[in-house]
Amino acid sequence: MSKQSFKTDARADTRKVILEAGTKSILKKGYHQCGLAEILEEAGVPKGSFYYYFPSKEDFGLALIENWLEKYAEAEQWLHDGSVSPLTRVRRFFEERYRMFQRARRQYGCMVGTLFAEMAAHNETFRRRVQEILTAWLDQIAECLVQAQRAAEIGADLDARAMAEFCLISWEGAVQRGKTVQSIAPLDLFFQVIFDSLLTK
Amino acid sequence: MSKQSFKTDARADTRKVILEAGTKSILKKGYHQCGLAEILEEAGVPKGSFYYYFPSKEDFGLALIENWLEKYAEAEQWLHDGSVSPLTRVRRFFEERYRMFQRARRQYGCMVGTLFAEMAAHNETFRRRVQEILTAWLDQIAECLVQAQRAAEIGADLDARAMAEFCLISWEGAVQRGKTVQSIAPLDLFFQVIFDSLLTK
Repeated sequence: MSKQSFKTDARADTRKVILEAGTKSILKKGYHQCGLAEILEEAGVPKGSFYYYFPSKEDFGLALIENWLEKYAEAEQWLHDGSVSPLTRVRRFFEERYRMFQRARRQYGCMVGTLFAEMAAHNETFRRRVQEILTAWLDQIAECLVQAQRAAEIGADLDARAMAEFCLISWEGAVQRGKTVQSIAPLDLFFQVIFDSLLTK
Repeated sequence: MSKQSFKTDARADTRKVILEAGTKSILKKGYHQCGLAEILEEAGVPKGSFYYYFPSKEDFGLALIENWLEKYAEAEQWLHDGSVSPLTRVRRFFEERYRMFQRARRQYGCMVGTLFAEMAAHNETFRRRVQEILTAWLDQIAECLVQAQRAAEIGADLDARAMAEFCLISWEGAVQRGKTVQSIAPLDLFFQVIFDSLLTK
């Protein structure tokens, strides 16, 4: 490895360390209540170097969303797993997110949802990016549900896209509620209603 | 009217004016991003008098919730309207909130939901109060659904309390989504799924 590429790696690492520290703080305390000093202390990075990586707090917020999306990659893979039925793919996507919520001890919830609740209504850049992400999930879930209809796993009378959207809407509601009551129960309720009542034959 | 009661009224009025200005700012910008100076300027109240009415920002936040609840009183009345069927009562409760969302031009969403998303995960006092409010709604809606089952308006196999909770969960999700996409469509979807698919015979 050349000296140059080593330097590039070190830079990428520091950026990543700051992002991970930021994610931890923001999911605990919210975007606005989370101070830069605290994040940098957690990351063990001197304050001066922050703006080298992130020109503004908004850039930082957007980078946090992208960093967080990598964590969803595993969940998204399930939506393309041809070895199981289309409806099972959708269920496994949410099951993976269920496990993420459990691992985070129910405190953290969904980064996209958190930034979204705090920022989307009053910051156009955030709003647009969050909407892009939600639309991408929506497209993939809707495609699975169309296939599930062809495979007669769910009723042909359902509007697949509307159902996909309702899944995402009620999932975010369930995660929020799970944070408030500090319980996994709202997510269990989500599975029960969506997969035992709504998405049936 | 005696001079004393006039003074009391004036005090109550100023408190109310501050609360209304705070509600407007917070629903637009979020709890943490909303500065005191801005609220007081909007209210036309000198800064010094704020702490006379609210000892801390947390007290202010809690007072905002109580003030907001008064706006829900109209929606809650529908849940007790004996002149219509139990299922219609539930529908009208959400229809009233739908109108509130529309009146606020889709930007504001639900105050309880906003404070809840920002605060509930990291402030125990807020979390507890928000949970009390949600539980009170839950009890009332569940009671309507039990009556709707007795009246054979909805299936007897449904768990009324779980369905009531799912209504509230997916409603909050729909409001959040409505704010992000700046549209009433997610709320229309809520009515479609809940009242045309889930809560049927």
